[in-house]
Order: sequence, then C-alpha cells, then structure tokens
Amino acid sequence: MGGDHTGFLYQAVSGKIAGLIDQGVLRPGDRVPSVRRISAQEGVSVSTTLQAYTLLESRGYIEARPQSGFYVRARLAAQPPEPRGSNQARQTTRVGISSLMSRILLAASDPAVVPLGAACPAPELLPIRRISHIMAGLLRRAGNETNAYTFLPGNREFQRQIARRSLDWGGRLDPDEILATSGATEAMHLCLRAVTRPGDMVAVESPAFFGILLQLETLGLKAVEIPCHPQHGLRLDVLHDVLRKQRVSACVASPNFSNPLGSCMSDDAKRELVEMLAGHGVPLIEDDLYGDIQFDGPRPRAAKAFDRAGMVLLCSSFSKLVAPGYRVGWTAAGRFQARVQTLKMSSTMVTPSLMQMAIAEYLESGSYDRHLRRVRAAFKLQTEQMIAAVSEHFPAGTRVGRPRGGFVLWVELPSGSDALDLLDRALAKGISISPGRMFSPRQRYENYVRLSCGYPWSPRLDQAVRTLATLI
Amino acid sequence: MGGDHTGFLYQAVSGKIAGLIDQGVLRPGDRVPSVRRISAQEGVSVSTTLQAYTLLESRGYIEARPQSGFYVRARLAAQPPEPRGSNQARQTTRVGISSLMSRILLAASDPAVVPLGAACPAPELLPIRRISHIMAGLLRRAGNETNAYTFLPGNREFQRQIARRSLDWGGRLDPDEILATSGATEAMHLCLRAVTRPGDMVAVESPAFFGILLQLETLGLKAVEIPCHPQHGLRLDVLHDVLRKQRVSACVASPNFSNPLGSCMSDDAKRELVEMLAGHGVPLIEDDLYGDIQFDGPRPRAAKAFDRAGMVLLCSSFSKLVAPGYRVGWTAAGRFQARVQTLKMSSTMVTPSLMQMAIAEYLESGSYDRHLRRVRAAFKLQTEQMIAAVSEHFPAGTRVGRPRGGFVLWVELPSGSDALDLLDRALAKGISISPGRMFSPRQRYENYVRLSCGYPWSPRLDQAVRTLATLI
Repeated sequence: MGGDHTGFLYQAVSGKIAGLIDQGVLRPGDRVPSVRRISAQEGVSVSTTLQAYTLLESRGYIEARPQSGFYVRARLAAQPPEPRGSNQARQTTRVGISSLMSRILLAASDPAVVPLGAACPAPELLPIRRISHIMAGLLRRAGNETNAYTFLPGNREFQRQIARRSLDWGGRLDPDEILATSGATEAMHLCLRAVTRPGDMVAVESPAFFGILLQLETLGLKAVEIPCHPQHGLRLDVLHDVLRKQRVSACVASPNFSNPLGSCMSDDAKRELVEMLAGHGVPLIEDDLYGDIQFDGPRPRAAKAFDRAGMVLLCSSFSKLVAPGYRVGWTAAGRFQARVQTLKMSSTMVTPSLMQMAIAEYLESGSYDRHLRRVRAAFKLQTEQMIAAVSEHFPAGTRVGRPRGGFVLWVELPSGSDALDLLDRALAKGISISPGRMFSPRQRYENYVRLSCGYPWSPRLDQAVRTLATLI
Repeated sequence: MGGDHTGFLYQAVSGKIAGLIDQGVLRPGDRVPSVRRISAQEGVSVSTTLQAYTLLESRGYIEARPQSGFYVRARLAAQPPEPRGSNQARQTTRVGISSLMSRILLAASDPAVVPLGAACPAPELLPIRRISHIMAGLLRRAGNETNAYTFLPGNREFQRQIARRSLDWGGRLDPDEILATSGATEAMHLCLRAVTRPGDMVAVESPAFFGILLQLETLGLKAVEIPCHPQHGLRLDVLHDVLRKQRVSACVASPNFSNPLGSCMSDDAKRELVEMLAGHGVPLIEDDLYGDIQFDGPRPRAAKAFDRAGMVLLCSSFSKLVAPGYRVGWTAAGRFQARVQTLKMSSTMVTPSLMQMAIAEYLESGSYDRHLRRVRAAFKLQTEQMIAAVSEHFPAGTRVGRPRGGFVLWVELPSGSDALDLLDRALAKGISISPGRMFSPRQRYENYVRLSCGYPWSPRLDQAVRTLATLI
C-alpha cells in the first residue's frame, strides 16, 4: 500500500468514528471500540487505525487514557462559544448575597435536589472509607492526643506533609509557616482580616467565588472587580490600571482554576501578578483550592511560588478532594503569619488535631496521589459531559465555558434571561443551580449560571439539564 | 445519759477531729475515719459521732459525700481573705494581651510544664476512651454522613440534645435555635461580631477572661470594665450607672462561675441583669462555659432563662468537660440568630458533623450526667487543695478566692508583687501561671495570678506551689 492510499484509509476510518460521535451514538465518556476491533471490523491494519485515532484525538473528538484505551471527549466543534466577560474594573460599596448563598448551600444538603448548585464532589469520588479507617485507627492508638487541647498553629505531622507537598506547586514551605484552619473558608477569612480594616477596598476577580464576596460583605470591605479572561484569568492590564489610580488593601484571586471560570494563569502572568502587587505594597490572598485538579499537563504552580517578599498569603484545603465534612484547610501567610495566628487564636482557637492527624496520615501513605489521578480524570470527564449536555439542550445564544481544571462550569444564557428567576423555577423542580449574580458584588451576570460538575454523569443529571433548558 | 452529757461528748469528738485537721494530719481530700470506727475508738454511740460530724460539717471542716462517707474540706478558717476588686467602672481603648496569651497556651501544650496557667482539665478527668469509642463507631456505621459537606447550622441530633439539656439551666430552647460552633470561643466571637461594629464600647466583667479581651482587641472594640464581687459577680449598681451615662453595644458576662473569680450571680441578680440590659436595648452575650461545674447545690440557671426579649446570646461548649480537642461549642443567639449564622457561614462555614454526632451520642447515652457528678467533685476537691496549699505556702498578705464552681483560682499577691515578672521566673522553673494583667484591658491586677485547678492534686503540684511561693 502507498502513502496516499493509507492516508485515505485512515481518514475514512476517522470520518466514520467522528460520524458516530456527531450523531450521538458514541457519547462523551464512552469508550471507543479498541484499535484491534476496529482494524478487524474495517479490514485495515492496526497502524492505520492508530493513525485514525491520532487524527481524532488531535481534532478533540477522543482522548487516550493510559492503559485503558480511547474515550470520547466533549464535542468541541459543536459547542457554543465561551461566555463573555467585561473589560472594565468596577467598584462597589456593598454586596448582598448571604441569603442566596444560604439557599444554594441548604439545597446541597438535600439528597432529593439535583446537585448542580454548590460545588460539592459526589461522595463516591471521595476516599471516605479510607479516611474513616485512618480516623478509627488514630482514635484507638492515640485517643488522648486526639482529644486534648493543643494550642499549636498546626499538628506537626500535618504541617510537615503540607510543606512536603509544596514542592508540587513550585514552593518550598517550612512546616512552621503553616497554620491549620477550618477549611479554606477560614483561611481566606483570617487572611482578609489580617491585611484589611473595615471600609478598605479589595481587588477581586470578576466573576468571583461568592464565598469571598460574602466575606467582604460581613467584614465591611469594598470590592473593585477586575475582569478575567475565561482561559487566562485575571486581566493584569486592568489590575495595573486600578493599582495606579486607587488605594487597594489586598487582592484576592485564584490563579489556578478560578471559580466559576476554571481559568488558569500562565507562570509568566503569575510572576507578573505577584511582582506588580508587591511593587504597590498590596498583599495577594491566593485561593488555591482547585490547584490540584488540572485537566491536562502537570500540576500548575501557585502564585506563591513567585513570592519573594512574603506578600502572598496562600490558602487551600482538603474539602474538595478528601473530606468536605472534616473542615481542614491551611494557610501560609508569609509576612502576615503572626497576625493571622493571633486572629485564629482569638476567633476559633485551633483546628481539631484529630482531623489534621487523619489528613496527614492519608497524605503520608501515598493514597492522595493515587486518588488525585482518579478524580482529576473523573472531574474532567464530568465537566466535558456537562458541556456536551448544555451544548445540546440549552437554547441558541447560550455560551459555555471551557474550564481548564476544577469542577464547575460557567454558562452565559441568551441575553434577557434571568438566572435568579431560573433558580426559583429550578428549585421548584428539584434542581439547584448557582445564579450568576452571586459571583459579582454589583450583582452583574444576571443571565449567567454556574453548574457544578461534581457528580458522575447519569440519566438524572441529563434529565436535569433538559429540564433547565425548558425553563430558560 | 442526759442531753448535756451527750453534748459534751460530741463536742469533744468533733474537737479532736478538728485538731487532726488543723495540724495537717488529715488533709483536704482525705477521708475521715468512718462513724463506726470513731464510735468504737472513742467509746461513744454512733449517733453521738454523727452529731460530731454534723458539727464539723456545719463549720466547714468536712463534707459528706453520698454513699462514700465524710471527707476533709479546705480549711476555711485558716485561709487568707479573698482578693479585692474595685468599685469603679473603667474604660479603655486598646488591649494588648495576645502575646501573653500565646505564651500561656503554648506552655499548656508542653507536658514538661506544670499546668497552672491555661484552664485545661487533666486528661484523666475526661471521658476520652468513651468518646473515642463512640467516634470510631460512627465512622464505621455512618462514614458518608461524617465526611460529607453539610451546610446546616447544626447536626439535628446535636441540636436536639442541647435543647433537651436546656431544661437543666431553666431554659426551653428549640433545636432550631442552636448553632454549632468551633468551641465557645467561636460562639462568643460570632456573637460579638453580630451585635457590634468596630469602635463600639462593650461592657465586660473585671476581672474578665482574657480570651474575650483578645476578641475585643482584634475586633477593634473598646471595653468598659464593670467590677465584680468575688462571690456574687457583676456589680449591677455600677453597670446601671454606666448604661445611663454612655452608649454600650453589648455586655459580655459569665453569670455562672466567671473566669477567673468563680463567682455566681443569684437568680434575682440574673433576672435584674437581663431586664436592665433589655431596657437599655443592650444585648447580653452570656458565657456559660463553666455552668455545669457547680461545687454545691443544683445546677445554677443561666441568665438566658430570664430572657423574654431574645436579647441574650447564650454560648457554651464541651471543651472543658468532654473533649477539648474536638472544638464543639454552640450558641443560641435569640433575635440575632440569623446574623450569627451568616457570620458563621462566611467565616468557617460549618462545624464538623462527626464531632457533633459524637457529642450528641454521648449526651444521649446518659454518660454525661454520670461524668458530671464525678468531675464536679474532682474540681471542687482540687480547688480546695489548691486553696489549702496556697494558704499554707504563699507569703503573708496573700488573698485567695473562694470560687463557687469551675476550676480556676484567683489569687492576690502581697502588694508590690509583679505577676508578670513572676510568670517569667516561673516558666524558667517549668511552671505556668496566668498573670493578672491578662484579665483586664487596662492591664490592672498586676499583683494577681490565676491558678488552674484542673489537675488532681499531686506532689508535683504541691512542689510547684512551694516553688511559686519562694519566687514571689
């Protein structure tokens, strides 16, 4: 066989499979028939089939998974464009999202509600039996230690494990730098309190995670919204402009997989961000909650990796990937460490040793790394499946995000849609969503929703997306 | 035998035993020889010996314990007078106790240091095995539930148990009123934030628990100190005067067994306090952390029992009596409930379900009530032993408190003593104490110390008191 003929053959094979995908016979997440089977079926060589699969992979139809074969990806070509952001910084004096947040979170605790609202992972994706087993062992072996008052910033072994893992994101933390907190929520809250006073202005991403906006609201802080690129995150040109024009006490950002965009800043942009802020004497409170959940390539660096001046206060937790209910997070607050520790001592004293010891033992055992590989693939697949379903069912004019990590999806509904109204009607049908207004202190993003992709795809989720589509 | 003759006999017997106590042959906590044995020994009737013991009891020498016999109490007659308070309200703008608090708390985590500083109970007084066993069972039976995100104000069973126990302190809480917190520390902090703004004035006890003063400091609040009677607590006349003259945003108090005094307000005084504050529109943040640890008589009522207007925010926890390391407390914040819940959601989200479930199961089982009887007796005895040791060893001019519950002792050193200097020298000898300055925003009480009585009496404690005496 000559080159051309082979070329024709592999294109024919790839075209056939692409057709099956386009028609929905093969759907996102489905395993593509094996190379051997297709070769036999189509009467072509294994290498020709492999060429066909490589072409399909390069066009975004399928993807290889090590030792497992090829799987259908979300059909990028057929997908709507990405949601639009804005180009201007905007500032505000008050936020008002606590009641919306209560509704979304309460719905998340109700198993009867389809969980597209809060960013909660499915229990079956969490290592619950393993961590429960570790806890039970600790209670047997070290009861006194798990129960006693300990007034240290963190359990020693927990601090050591966090420090060890800092190499993964390009850092080199010392165990003594690490303060255990009640989830990333408390870490962020303590850091905000450490570097601001009521009435101060704080630069936040737009759109931004509503939990941060609620913190600004309850702490009496004002927000200036910095627009974000859906893929590359914080618009540094706009931020620079803001820093030159007004006094900002802190910048809060998620360079890795911001919530709700799923964007990821490049290393260069992270370095520039850290240096720009340090140059203006502005601390960066970095939320790296989703940093371990990249969809492709190596684990991205944290902006903290570029921190020379101790001006980055890094925050994360194990709530999204290991134990939501244990409330174990941490912060390395750089030059603000002593202040953050005093605020912790004064407001919640310490984080339970038992929880820290359990997480430390889990990290030490190597289970976390194996678990990460599994859940990264799951969250990526689930996100692609959600993209595919929204693309298929939502009305024309819908725009859908392309997150690069995490497990939430930002969706722009056709203009004129009211996502707040949609929330009411969706909850009435037993479906929870997060309306876009929650992601902006000015309550912009009226026609946006954030959909959680934390659960394995199911007919129930598919039906929920169809129902939402009819409600829009 | 005539009445006079019997009278003479029982006085002779009681005099003999009082002599043994005065000479230190029988020491506080020792069991007095049984009625039968003394009867035989002294050749008198059982009823005569019983009369002698009753006399000794009424004079404070001994006390009866049900089904156990008679025990020596601390020798009240031989003790120094009580520490003095002040009569005037004082106000201040700044407090500065965080570094002192860090030192005391860090010392408490060091087993090599004699623990007279922080108010920590001895591990052997806590039901650690029982609660660990309950936890392990929960992890086995209800792993998913213990690990999942639950965004509810409290675990239902936990709320139910707290509501059930509210009858003990004269209340009738509804389970829905109860918010689980990270210890009483977070409960108090949330309540303070809910009813104040930075710059506001808050009325506090003088002396007051240093943790509260640190909260005022970190929240940018000012304090007006209301003097306390060592036995009867808050001086309502002074408080009334303050309320008439200036704007106060909240009053923080521990009507039951204030820390460090161990005073307890009468029911009438509690009612007057609640009504006076409500009349001025001032919320009462009530710290009832030690309310279950009365030395004598029934469990005292909380001030919340007299709350008609929803103006009392009651806070407590299980850190002193069940599980210091679990960090489980709660608040019932009356009309400020919604605000407190929003602040909780924004700052630490929720308290781990697992810990709440374990405490709930422990309360449900009835173990807590049995445990309470045991530890009340232990803390009372330990406090009396500390009073006796301080009375015996500390220099003339020392005044010693007579706490009515809890397990801390307030001691006034001879005038001119510097307790801060004493702390430095005591820590150098491996003994921790809490210097008086920590208990006042104006750093008064320079020559006072608070001694923890959380540990069973031992030669090590006795030696520590002797060492302190030489250092003063």
